[in-house]
Amino acid sequence: MKWPSHGSNPQHLFKYMGLELPEKYIDFSANINPLGPPPALKEKWNDFYKEITVYPDPFAEDLKSRIAKDEQVSKTSIIIGNGGAELITLVARFLTGKKVLVVEPTFSEYEKACRANHCEIHYHQVKEPNFALSIDELRLRLHSVDAVFLCNPNNPTGIQYPLSTILSIIEECEKHNCFVILDEAFYDFLLDYQSFIPYIKKFSNLIIIRSMTKMFAIPGLRLGYLVANPDIIEKIGRLQPHWSINTIALLAGELCLQDIDFIKKTQIYILKERERMYTFYNQNNFEVTSSQVNFYLLRDPFLTDQFSLFEFLIHKKIIPRHTFNFPGLEGKWLRFAIKSKRDNNALMEVMLEWRQLH
Amino acid sequence: MKWPSHGSNPQHLFKYMGLELPEKYIDFSANINPLGPPPALKEKWNDFYKEITVYPDPFAEDLKSRIAKDEQVSKTSIIIGNGGAELITLVARFLTGKKVLVVEPTFSEYEKACRANHCEIHYHQVKEPNFALSIDELRLRLHSVDAVFLCNPNNPTGIQYPLSTILSIIEECEKHNCFVILDEAFYDFLLDYQSFIPYIKKFSNLIIIRSMTKMFAIPGLRLGYLVANPDIIEKIGRLQPHWSINTIALLAGELCLQDIDFIKKTQIYILKERERMYTFYNQNNFEVTSSQVNFYLLRDPFLTDQFSLFEFLIHKKIIPRHTFNFPGLEGKWLRFAIKSKRDNNALMEVMLEWRQLH
Repeated sequence: MKWPSHGSNPQHLFKYMGLELPEKYIDFSANINPLGPPPALKEKWNDFYKEITVYPDPFAEDLKSRIAKDEQVSKTSIIIGNGGAELITLVARFLTGKKVLVVEPTFSEYEKACRANHCEIHYHQVKEPNFALSIDELRLRLHSVDAVFLCNPNNPTGIQYPLSTILSIIEECEKHNCFVILDEAFYDFLLDYQSFIPYIKKFSNLIIIRSMTKMFAIPGLRLGYLVANPDIIEKIGRLQPHWSINTIALLAGELCLQDIDFIKKTQIYILKERERMYTFYNQNNFEVTSSQVNFYLLRDPFLTDQFSLFEFLIHKKIIPRHTFNFPGLEGKWLRFAIKSKRDNNALMEVMLEWRQLH
Repeated sequence: MKWPSHGSNPQHLFKYMGLELPEKYIDFSANINPLGPPPALKEKWNDFYKEITVYPDPFAEDLKSRIAKDEQVSKTSIIIGNGGAELITLVARFLTGKKVLVVEPTFSEYEKACRANHCEIHYHQVKEPNFALSIDELRLRLHSVDAVFLCNPNNPTGIQYPLSTILSIIEECEKHNCFVILDEAFYDFLLDYQSFIPYIKKFSNLIIIRSMTKMFAIPGLRLGYLVANPDIIEKIGRLQPHWSINTIALLAGELCLQDIDFIKKTQIYILKERERMYTFYNQNNFEVTSSQVNFYLLRDPFLTDQFSLFEFLIHKKIIPRHTFNFPGLEGKWLRFAIKSKRDNNALMEVMLEWRQLH
């Protein structure tokens, strides 16, 4: 058995560590909106019941129309997915046997899905503590692969790569018939994110994946979408199981996208909490990444290995995300979601306790 | 555009026919339990709400344990799926590029998923009006393929193939390293179905797929499972997206399997309704298949093509499943689900009207 490769589902982490899952704990390992789902979901929940007996629309026409309108693209440029994870798997299937470059450290599913589809995996490592992405270091590597996976803002660092860098990568890749898979799972936690979706018209090698489960706090329902030029959509869509997105997720998705105020409110909440916590971390000599979103990496610079801090937190019923299986991190950082004010306060209290002891 | 390839979602059928979807209609095209979901689902629906914010357990441990116990197999012999359709796609992916035999007429997803995975499709046609399956006719064909898809009881005919025939097929296939994919999507509508699951221990070439959306009337939630020897499970499981089954489906699945009385009640209801309707059809000179489950094929033997009957029904707001895209049927039959007593009465009234006119 290895360290569980994902956040969330802490039962698997505790099992691995040989510990009993406590009755009460605060889970900082899942990067979900701390405000919960948009209020309309709770209001409509009872109406959703009768929909469980109805087959989902396999073409997801209504939700697709909504996204097409919001994002100003054609419906033929969209695939709705059973969560971002399904879309990553479909892209990996589409890339079967190809040479794939993964910009590390990043979400482990890209590599896992590509491996399952017999891809040859190459790595480009962005380096701590700044995790900056340089087109100059990347350029030559792009010439020898068929696809590159890039997460922006990146998971687990929370760092947003500059628009100009990403555009240079897409342009360079286009010259060499290389796909760019841009995972924007957390884009909507930024107040001023500049969308790459308009670029799919210019760049036929650009594939954008978005999750709807983080901002709208519905990981239990599974929902995401993929945007690319219609030719790619047609090829990837053919690989998707029929009725892949459940009826409740489709209905919830439409309601979620209507609540612009909720998105705005979340963005401001996250920004303020991040600033508040970062002030605390600076004052208490913890090092954090310059995250733009709802999670960040942290380390105690007085430790070489963060395992003692990790264990301390676990025993205090605070669950961070370990980074043992992120190449280039290997446990040297811990990842935390930004949660509610109350949960964040609880975390800061425990961190203060740690600092007083060490 | 072609005839929509599936039942359910009648909006696509009406669109194809250039008709407005009426406000009220009775949909006989989806083969779902007419009693609706087990009562516990409605009782627990409010509790489910908070679960939408929780990532599903990617290993589906609880539901897997329940099925393992009920079916007397190891958990390592089970994959939980996002509906039967996902499991079919995963098997097709597993069979990429292989020669696949499909016993027609049958559920169209086998061929569709295998084609998307570059399989070479071969057909074996069972012939109307009895649609009997003969091992003697099949035997030689099994020697030249890598896998055979068999649906039992078969969709769309509703006919159950004899246990001995299926066992002969599995044995014959085993000799030639050929997989048998046995889709038992409707097995639980039979009072006395003899499960093939015990045979996975003896036959390492046997893959069984089961749906939970038909009996428990939850097609909107998506849920199914696959049973095979652990070696196959390991290989197919690797191809499945992470978190593929949503949290609500996992919870609902556990509740559903506990309600044995509900399953029994459904089996008796279907049996009685089928007998009642078959008596009517016989008296009024409609031909039906000897279905053992909750749907059947029907034709008016006085017509060569059933299209005029199909149109008549549509105009009466009764929606059967057309069979234009079932090889070997090509519109010569119509498929009907067995619905509630009231809906079935409405259907019989309209059929009587048709008979009085023709």
